Amino acid sequence: MADEVILLGTWISMYAMRVKIALAEKGIKYDYKQEDLNNKSPLLLEANPIHKKIPVLIHNGKPVCESLIIVQYIDEVWNDKSPLLPSDPYQRAHARFWADFVDKKVSDVSTKLWTTKGEELEAGKKEFFETFKILEGELGDKPYFGGETFGFVDLSLVTFYSWFHAYEVLGNINIEAECPKIIAWAKRCLQKETVAKSLPDQKKVYEAVVLLRKTRGYE
Amino acid sequence: MADEVILLGTWISMYAMRVKIALAEKGIKYDYKQEDLNNKSPLLLEANPIHKKIPVLIHNGKPVCESLIIVQYIDEVWNDKSPLLPSDPYQRAHARFWADFVDKKVSDVSTKLWTTKGEELEAGKKEFFETFKILEGELGDKPYFGGETFGFVDLSLVTFYSWFHAYEVLGNINIEAECPKIIAWAKRCLQKETVAKSLPDQKKVYEAVVLLRKTRGYE
Repeated sequence: MADEVILLGTWISMYAMRVKIALAEKGIKYDYKQEDLNNKSPLLLEANPIHKKIPVLIHNGKPVCESLIIVQYIDEVWNDKSPLLPSDPYQRAHARFWADFVDKKVSDVSTKLWTTKGEELEAGKKEFFETFKILEGELGDKPYFGGETFGFVDLSLVTFYSWFHAYEVLGNINIEAECPKIIAWAKRCLQKETVAKSLPDQKKVYEAVVLLRKTRGYE
Repeated sequence: MADEVILLGTWISMYAMRVKIALAEKGIKYDYKQEDLNNKSPLLLEANPIHKKIPVLIHNGKPVCESLIIVQYIDEVWNDKSPLLPSDPYQRAHARFWADFVDKKVSDVSTKLWTTKGEELEAGKKEFFETFKILEGELGDKPYFGGETFGFVDLSLVTFYSWFHAYEVLGNINIEAECPKIIAWAKRCLQKETVAKSLPDQKKVYEAVVLLRKTRGYE
């Protein structure tokens, strides 16, 4: 019997995009269900009763939650192609450390660029570039964070690239001017079909974020 | 050549205790270095330049940071005995989800019990019990979160037990009255020598937390 794979997500979520890339890397067919976070589906509430958040992967009826945990699950179940985590324990710990860094830092500093104003925004910009400079340091001269091949850290971070135009316009910054290596790396990742087809258009994200700012009263 | 294993920690850190339990479970000899967080050692700053936090495990000169990442690393390197994570990918994802829940929720709600007052403390107490009720629900009638054997989630959570006396006295709560299953589970874990020898005395933690409240001005 073929595997039944369902992904609950929203098109704009960088966390759901991570799972899309992982599934694409593994060549897994799945049923994507777009969630309305203002009116969550009974399926989402049942599959993730603790956090009630997307993304959720439902594999043969069993739910897996939290994007990085889902990606590791996918890598362990479909382990016959495109390994996402390295096989060496030290390298695996290293990859987990940097994906965790993305989760702990990048999301926070990015959100400030479109939800704050004045001094808070200025501090946010500074933190944003500090964070991405650290990431540039870790990337070094490697083509990917994973080394010669695209991997767990690349997948965790590249999905934020789809929001970069929104960050630039709404935060009034120029990311390429400050972090050219990150932009070159992101464009390199985008050359992979698995990434390109999993990320929405930056302009479309920008329009949605403008709307989100209005409805949430951040303007 | 024998492995050189160094652990940088503080005796009161529930995150360092996790690593101690994991090393004890695997029967690994190591050199423990107590850090003074007001005067961090050059070794700590060099081993964890990004977060500058304990615990750090240094294995044959290579540092691994973040407690849950360290525990997974230990489990992968010394995989010949006492598996901490289950071998089945779905069960692994499930264990990672609950350890992540402990990291995201338990630490926050526990800290409020000794750092806040008045309404904030009352809200903190409510949240504390809500969180532990969720954990009781997940534990169910199993002896351990891992099922029949002590595992990753047990190790992640049980270290907070060493702070329970401090939470009870300073937060004016009775944890056993509200969450008897958690107390029974913690006592069951404490019967394991690997856990018992890795956790400090609750009274000693209480005294240290009282002092910490004074120096940080939370009283």
